[in-house]
Amino acid sequence: MNGTLLLPRGFRFGGASCGLKRSGAPDLALVVANATASVAAAFTSNLVRAAPVVVSEDHLRRSRGRMRAIIVNSGNANCCTGAAGLAAARRMARAMADEVGCRPEEVFVCSTGVIGKPLKVEKIVAAVPALLPALGSGPEAFAALSRGILTTDTRSKTASASVRIAGRTVHIAGCTKGAGMIAPQFLPPHATMLAFLLTDAAISPPLLRRALAAVIGTTFDSITVDGDTSTNDTVALFASGASAARISSARSAGFRRFVRALERVCRSLALQIVADGEGARHVIGIDVRGASDARSAAAVARTIAHSPLVKTALAGADPNWGRILAAAGRAGVPFDPAKASITLAGVPVFRRGRPLPFDERTAHAGMGRHEYTMHVDLAAGRGRARMWTCELSEGYVRINADYRT
Amino acid sequence: MNGTLLLPRGFRFGGASCGLKRSGAPDLALVVANATASVAAAFTSNLVRAAPVVVSEDHLRRSRGRMRAIIVNSGNANCCTGAAGLAAARRMARAMADEVGCRPEEVFVCSTGVIGKPLKVEKIVAAVPALLPALGSGPEAFAALSRGILTTDTRSKTASASVRIAGRTVHIAGCTKGAGMIAPQFLPPHATMLAFLLTDAAISPPLLRRALAAVIGTTFDSITVDGDTSTNDTVALFASGASAARISSARSAGFRRFVRALERVCRSLALQIVADGEGARHVIGIDVRGASDARSAAAVARTIAHSPLVKTALAGADPNWGRILAAAGRAGVPFDPAKASITLAGVPVFRRGRPLPFDERTAHAGMGRHEYTMHVDLAAGRGRARMWTCELSEGYVRINADYRT
Repeated sequence: MNGTLLLPRGFRFGGASCGLKRSGAPDLALVVANATASVAAAFTSNLVRAAPVVVSEDHLRRSRGRMRAIIVNSGNANCCTGAAGLAAARRMARAMADEVGCRPEEVFVCSTGVIGKPLKVEKIVAAVPALLPALGSGPEAFAALSRGILTTDTRSKTASASVRIAGRTVHIAGCTKGAGMIAPQFLPPHATMLAFLLTDAAISPPLLRRALAAVIGTTFDSITVDGDTSTNDTVALFASGASAARISSARSAGFRRFVRALERVCRSLALQIVADGEGARHVIGIDVRGASDARSAAAVARTIAHSPLVKTALAGADPNWGRILAAAGRAGVPFDPAKASITLAGVPVFRRGRPLPFDERTAHAGMGRHEYTMHVDLAAGRGRARMWTCELSEGYVRINADYRT
Repeated sequence: MNGTLLLPRGFRFGGASCGLKRSGAPDLALVVANATASVAAAFTSNLVRAAPVVVSEDHLRRSRGRMRAIIVNSGNANCCTGAAGLAAARRMARAMADEVGCRPEEVFVCSTGVIGKPLKVEKIVAAVPALLPALGSGPEAFAALSRGILTTDTRSKTASASVRIAGRTVHIAGCTKGAGMIAPQFLPPHATMLAFLLTDAAISPPLLRRALAAVIGTTFDSITVDGDTSTNDTVALFASGASAARISSARSAGFRRFVRALERVCRSLALQIVADGEGARHVIGIDVRGASDARSAAAVARTIAHSPLVKTALAGADPNWGRILAAAGRAGVPFDPAKASITLAGVPVFRRGRPLPFDERTAHAGMGRHEYTMHVDLAAGRGRARMWTCELSEGYVRINADYRT
């Protein structure tokens, strides 16, 4: 899925350095749709909302989900920057609109980076006119887009899929960023994570919103690095229609196939975020079943995924199931510990309330793998949920104890 | 307060090594009241409850809060140990009762250490007869008690106070343990922390329960190291009556003075736990005011105290107020970020929604102190709460990534 990217038609994209990052690393990324695209988006549920979140939500509403472009900067979150920050986000949109030849409300704006520093928006505005003609529609241009949005990430993250709808091939491609402050909760109730998804399906804004809502809960909302939900989290999905494959009903087979393909792309991107989690080497799936309902299962999975004692045990590849059970026990969800069971990386360690004899070295080796799953069965019902997280390592502490200074 | 301990009359205490810890460190602690004492206690709200928690709660009920002794082992939590674990906890009580000459239900039992390993109770049972005659009522004996309950703690923690009631001097002394898995929530809704409080006040079990309930919310329930609530948390308060200072009404001046003195002892012990938090060098008070009510203020303080990004910034003494505000914004509590203010170690950094220019070096130096406070004003009401926590350091990760293996 991450070999050759299957890129949708109808878009041009790219990225560059405009001087926001002292390192000179890429810090600007642009997407332009050749014609008006359908747009669906999801924004952070944090009460503290960065200026670009406020502006993009407003633009999405005013344009009725029909937009032309995306402009993203990294290196500064433009958050807690007051009226000047809002003006800066609007100025980014206007600079882009001027070059594209559209209205400012047809531009989607995103920022990621440090909170509370004034955004030097003039650097962005100065770079846009030269970058726009340099945009492309091939893999190199998409790679430049995916690099321009990164902050503490160690690598860019892309995924794509194709699906046959109404006799035509629809492409979906996406890129994402995020390594810390990752616990997206888009669906009510609550990262900085940004994800940009492009497709050439022909689909209306309401149906596109429905497709995004159908997949976000089991993909971006099911990952966590550190439990800290960001002020800037944004997922934007643009559909150009350039495939001429029309999806006109949520009941059609085409819509269902589109949703499944979109989910594959979103899940790949979400797991790439976890794999690149700050200081992380492991992607651990947490599969909770046997809860009284799905919401209870999710509460247990989330509490386990956020427990510092579980996460440090994962860092040591230590099959310390007692910490997992103790975290489940404080999740506020009813179950009988005497009936619960836990399997770690394929090794049953606790069954129906009793510790099992197991080979420590086998379990330790299983937990040394890049990717593995822990299964927790609460034996209290049929509710089930799955989360993905990474360990809490000394590396995470090093990265975050001096991020800003 | 921690100079010379003011020890209550009517008790003997002590500690020893019985061989549970491979290191040979003390792992057994005993308290015996010379006559029947009034007892109040609080237990973990984790659904997963260690065998000694189950047994002590049962004994407290059956004895109607009138007990003679405490037996505590460290090095093994006797948790998730099934029927054998319950039998082991009861056997500890019986061994103690046999030597003291009381009924088993007059014995309070506690354990702390690793979860899920069978407790070698025969080592404890073998050690009790020799230790009992060696118990004392002076500072050295109390020091031995306080050492016998430790696990990953780097030092023992004691506090005491005296108060004049009805023309007589009442003493309160306590010891506690806990360095990780610390987020006690005794009051409904929810560490291993253990605390043993002894007093010579003459007070009935119901009034003693009321006194403990009056102080636990603002002391042990207001600290957190890592947000992980343990399966073994227990606070036990024994009153011998040996001072002959009788407290017979919750409306008396004597009761109020007793509660204030008890609160001082509990707060000192609670802050000593934070100061000895795994990998910690700082005790940070989190003072949240201006919330719509006290519960909302506590939710914000707790979310800030548990945020890995805030805690790693504290480790770096980094005045990164953006992370603090972002944590407050995901606490599920209504407020307007444009009106909020933050002061860090006495340095105002954010006022009514705007970043303030401040001297980074002054703030960094303030956050380098052993103890300091952050103030968060939500400007949304009169609700207020205070929590105490420590930073998340590389040391915490090291300690917990290979605690068991």
